[in-house]
Parts: sequence; structure tokens; C-alpha cells
Amino acid sequence: MGCGRLVLSGIVNVRLKAGNIVIVLLTDFGLRDPYVGQIKARLAEYAPAQRVVDLLHEVPDFNPHAGAHLLAAFAPGFPPGSVFLTVVDPGVGTPRDAVVVLAGGRWFVGPDNGLLSIAAARNADSRFWRITWKPEALSTTFHGRDLFARIAAEIARGEFPADKLTPLDTLGVEFDAGDLPRVIYVDHFGNAWTGVRGVPQDARVSAAGQLFRHGESFGFVGKGEGFWFVNSVGLLELAVNRGNAAAAYGLKVGDPVQVQRLN
Amino acid sequence: MGCGRLVLSGIVNVRLKAGNIVIVLLTDFGLRDPYVGQIKARLAEYAPAQRVVDLLHEVPDFNPHAGAHLLAAFAPGFPPGSVFLTVVDPGVGTPRDAVVVLAGGRWFVGPDNGLLSIAAARNADSRFWRITWKPEALSTTFHGRDLFARIAAEIARGEFPADKLTPLDTLGVEFDAGDLPRVIYVDHFGNAWTGVRGVPQDARVSAAGQLFRHGESFGFVGKGEGFWFVNSVGLLELAVNRGNAAAAYGLKVGDPVQVQRLN
Amino acid sequence: MGCGRLVLSGIVNVRLKAGNIVIVLLTDFGLRDPYVGQIKARLAEYAPAQRVVDLLHEVPDFNPHAGAHLLAAFAPGFPPGSVFLTVVDPGVGTPRDAVVVLAGGRWFVGPDNGLLSIAAARNADSRFWRITWKPEALSTTFHGRDLFARIAAEIARGEFPADKLTPLDTLGVEFDAGDLPRVIYVDHFGNAWTGVRGVPQDARVSAAGQLFRHGESFGFVGKGEGFWFVNSVGLLELAVNRGNAAAAYGLKVGDPVQVQRLN
Repeated sequence: MGCGRLVLSGIVNVRLKAGNIVIVLLTDFGLRDPYVGQIKARLAEYAPAQRVVDLLHEVPDFNPHAGAHLLAAFAPGFPPGSVFLTVVDPGVGTPRDAVVVLAGGRWFVGPDNGLLSIAAARNADSRFWRITWKPEALSTTFHGRDLFARIAAEIARGEFPADKLTPLDTLGVEFDAGDLPRVIYVDHFGNAWTGVRGVPQDARVSAAGQLFRHGESFGFVGKGEGFWFVNSVGLLELAVNRGNAAAAYGLKVGDPVQVQRLN
Repeated sequence: MGCGRLVLSGIVNVRLKAGNIVIVLLTDFGLRDPYVGQIKARLAEYAPAQRVVDLLHEVPDFNPHAGAHLLAAFAPGFPPGSVFLTVVDPGVGTPRDAVVVLAGGRWFVGPDNGLLSIAAARNADSRFWRITWKPEALSTTFHGRDLFARIAAEIARGEFPADKLTPLDTLGVEFDAGDLPRVIYVDHFGNAWTGVRGVPQDARVSAAGQLFRHGESFGFVGKGEGFWFVNSVGLLELAVNRGNAAAAYGLKVGDPVQVQRLN
Repeated sequence: MGCGRLVLSGIVNVRLKAGNIVIVLLTDFGLRDPYVGQIKARLAEYAPAQRVVDLLHEVPDFNPHAGAHLLAAFAPGFPPGSVFLTVVDPGVGTPRDAVVVLAGGRWFVGPDNGLLSIAAARNADSRFWRITWKPEALSTTFHGRDLFARIAAEIARGEFPADKLTPLDTLGVEFDAGDLPRVIYVDHFGNAWTGVRGVPQDARVSAAGQLFRHGESFGFVGKGEGFWFVNSVGLLELAVNRGNAAAAYGLKVGDPVQVQRLN
């Protein structure tokens, strides 16, 4: 642990503000099932003073690619020192690695299946560790509870678990860190998020064979009218004012979107 | 801040018990989406010692009227000093105001679209402020995170943000504060809540062309039988013992209910 | 209170570690409704320093039998001193008793309808109390908020409420504490949990007229292939790799599973 902090001096002094550190959960476990609660109980045991925030438990099932774009879009909105515990892990139990990433002053704990790779690639100073520690009781299907929660708790407490990790030069699985011109999430209103950032207002945006107009926000568009906007995490989003865009246009995760920047 | 507390002396001494203050969330964001988590992360940053409780994130979509009746029914069950962060806000991004209400010793932060108006009208001592502060980064679609969370956090910490607010004489949008004889919420059991309070046991209650009998509670009614009762927040509710009233009678939010008091 | 702790000396010294005690919620209230939030607000009021974890709010509706098997499977994974607040209570409001159970060093608060009986029976040292206290305001339909939350909070604070309880020799309703060869839960992936423990890898498992092969974990099985495994709480679970077992095989809560141990 002392060693751990030496290694990290100058990067982020987690220790000093551990009381305020938030552990952020991003998974495909769903909220209705007893998985998230078991992780939280483990976090309460090993990081009793740190707060836990459910960011998203509905990453499209078995889809680390969509999850990676979502995670990379959310991360900058959280304070440095935040610890993301992330699980979208169809390969759990197989020999895929478990990793820790430090990127932009934020920590990420999860499987080495690409899920963390975009958040990592969008920061110049990213560092990587493989989790080499194995807990006494490691279930084959629930590394989120048995492995990641423990590591995330120690980091959040400001006690970097150097003895449980081995430095890596790079991640084993990396997705393209550029924009993804596809639907990556559909919310309960039926709004369709895409993986495209920084779209100017005069761009031409179409999806499902339909041209969408730009709207600043919902209240500026007629009731039932479709439009696109840059959402609160900077991504291009398709919506219908007081309606359901996914239903109206048959949009689902993976569907392509066309974005034509005029200049 | 000192000014803020002077203004409020004699109304509610939040400062003294800030450690126990709860921030209560009532929105139409749904629990499955990444909106509530972003709000909670902001609250953890600005009110790290205060607890946050998810009261309801399934206010009927785009329906501040139903939300206002629900909020007014829930509020008295929470301790004085509680801070309600409320978002049912189809006009987000347009020039509708954002407001703070102090009513019955409880705080409410949200849009000035009627959502807070019934809780306010049912207390004689209510006070109002417009939120005049704008954060550096204010998204057009997520004032819950960028604006309301910050104000709610400061109030919950006991630091009334007088410099971010301007006193108002009244709210801009007010709903009728009397009972609403309609379905305002359907829960996952299929129980239909209405906006009608204080119904005596011998009243005649009908809905969907059907007369309902009164039942003290579920266990007193035959399996599959429909009945009405006064629920745990004082509202008339229609239910089926071990069944789904909404499905059985085709009840949905907005449907009328007839209540005939015999004396 | 002093009395309460005397009675319990030698069983579990909750007082010493009350700061780390977790209150664990297991109910059929669903997460989308405003029931859990009201319970949490009450817990925040009466146990402000204790953490609250949502373990499961989707116990099959009105099904304390399934709930009892789930609770008994989860409990050993939580630290001694944990306080389970459990509500699956179709008889709420009728004269069924409310009880406290101490089993395996963990506390359970809930209705005496069998829900706690399997967790109790699987520990040799279990002790029982009837809740004899009535709060001033006891709704007929929401004992979880008005009664159980208050008792659970006091226990979690380390202040055993001896004056609100009467010792019992045994529970009024007890389910068979052996395995239950039926589906007791279907998660959002469509995985079907059963009430069968400790199944060896060479057992023959079938359900829905179908023989299932054993798989160590999802990643070891072909995409779309059905299999069974021992899940992270020790129960036999039926699944399809990257698919929905409940949909593929028409499995639902209550369906039988056949387990043939070869030796």
C-alpha cells in the first residue's frame, strides 16, 4: 500500500480526499435483480465511508462496445478521484483478464474486454494494471462482487492495492476510440443516444431513412416532432418531443446514424 | 450564506440538524436510465454528508399535474428540513423559471410548472424564490443535474444560497390544490392511486363503470376481488387482492373516479 | 435497551461495530414504486449512520415461499450483524404476526408468514421475537414503513428494542427448509434460479422436458446454448449463453426442475 502510493505520487492524491470519493457503478446487471445489491454490500464492508452511485445498470446486454462509448462519455462529468466499477462481461469465468485503468485522474475497474478502452484512449496519461490477486472465494460468474468490488473499494479508500496488481503497458482488448455513428442506448422515454460527439447545429443528421432537424431542447420543438440535439454528456441524441423516438422510427441499439458536417 | 440564514431564522433551523437531512428525489427520469445517477454524483460532490433517497422516478412522463398531487401527498410523511429535488419538466430549456419553495418546514427545488404548487398551497406559511443563478455549464436538457442538484445540495447542507435566489411572491404556474378525482399513478402491482383524500369508509366509489367495495387492507378481501382503500399516504386507491386492478378494469393514469360521500 | 443488550450478550455484539452495519432490503415492492423510498426515509431518520442496501425488490409478487428460499441463499454472503428488512406480505393488515429473527449472527425483521423461516431453520442457534409494539400511526397496508423500518433501524443502531418485542419459542409459519426443486426467480437476462443447493457437476438436470448440460460459466458454453451451473449464491441456475433461458424454454417461477445425483 505504501508502495502503491509511491508509484502514484504526482498522478492523483486520492488519499487526501478519500472521504468524498464516489464509487460509480456501470453494468448490464439491471436494477431489478439481486446483483447490484450484493456488490454494494461488499463495497459497504470494504469502503464503509465512501458513497456509491448507480450510474447505469442497463448497458445493452453483452455489449461492451456500447458500454465503452457510454462510459467514455460519462467519465469527464465526474470529479477526479472517482472510481468506476464497471461490469459488462459476457466472458466472465473464462481466462480474460481483469484490469484497473487510471485515466484523466479517474479510476476504472473491470474486465479487459474493451469496456474501459475508450475512456483510456481519450486521455493521454492513462495507466494500466492487471488484477493478479484472487480472493479465497471467487465465483465463476460474479467477478463484479468477488473481485472488482474489493479492488474498487481499496482504491476508493485511498489504499492503492499494489500487491494485488501488476502494471501493464496496454490493455489486451481495445476498441476504436473515435466516434461510433450508431445508436448505443435507448432510454425509457424512447430517446436514442448515439456515439457521435461534437456535432455542430448545422450538420445534416439522418437515421432510419429520415432526416432529423436540430432542436435546442424538447421545449423548442412541436409536440410529437422528431429532432436531434447534443445531449447532456455531449453525444448526438435523437428524440421526439413528448413522444417516443425509438418507437416512432423503429430505432434500436446498433442502428446506424448518418452525420454530415457542412464545413 | 450568513444572509440566507438570517432571512430564515424562525422558520426552520436547518443548520442544527444538517447531518440528518435527507434529500428526496421525485422525477419522471425512470430508474433504468443514467439520469438519476448523474444527479446523485453531483449531490455527493456538493452535499457529501447528506443522505439521498429515491422516492419516485416514475411520475407519469411529462405530467407535472399528477406529479404535483403525488408530491403533496408524500411530503407530510417526511421530517421537517427534508429537501425535495423534483423534476417533471417537459419545458426544460425554454424560459420557464426554476424555483425553490419552503412549505411546512420542507424544501422543494424544481421547475415552476405547477409541480410544486399543490404542496405549496396546502401550507399556510409557504415561501418562494426564483433560482437566478446560472452555473458555468448549464446543459439545455438536464437542469436537474446542473441547476437543481446544486441548489438542493446547498440547502441540505444548511447553507441557504440566498445569493443564487430572488424572493418571489407567488409561483408562476399553480394547479388547483383541491382533490383530483382521477388516477394519478399505477404501481407495479397494478394498484391505481387517485388524487382524492380523506374518503370515509361508507363512501360510494366507482371507476371504469364499476362500483368498488371498501376493504381495510388486502388480507381482508377475497383473492381476485376488487376494492378501494385509503392508502398509506392518505389517498383513495383501487386494488385487487393478489391481482392487478389496472389490468382487470383497464385503469390508466388520467381515468376518472367517482366518489360519493354519503353525509 | 440496556436490558436488550444483556439478553444478547454472547450472541452478537452489534454495538461494537454499529457504524459498519448494513441494513439489507428484500421485498416484492418493485423498484419503480414509491414504497422503497418511504422505507429508506424512515431508516434515514432512525438509523442515520447505517448504510442501506437494496438487495432485491422483485421477489415474485405475493410469494413468501420463493422469497424465503432466496433470503436463505443470500444471507450467508452478508457479514454478521447485517439487518435484513424483508417484506413479502400479502396478509398485511390482517392479524398475522410481525417478528424478529436472529440466525447465524444476522438479524431479520418481517412478517411471520414463512418468509424468514428457512433462513432461521438453517441455523442451529436461531432466536425469535414477536413485535408487540405498535407505532402511533400504523397504516393497514404499509407495515414495512411504519413498523419494520423502525425496528430494523433500532437493531442496526445497536439498540436492541427489547421493550418492543416479546420472545417466542418458534415462528408461527414455517416452510420446509430443504431444497425446493422449482424455479424461484427469473432474472432480467432470463436466467432461472432454482431452490436447489450443492449440485455436483455430474448430476443430470432437466427442466421443461429438456436435459441441460453443465457449464462452468457463460463463457465456456456456445452462444445460444442452454446449460446449468451453480450460481454465485450456491443455487442451481438454468441459463443460455448470451440468450434468454426463460423465453427459450418457457420457464417461469414455480416450474419444476429435476435433479438426479449420480452418486
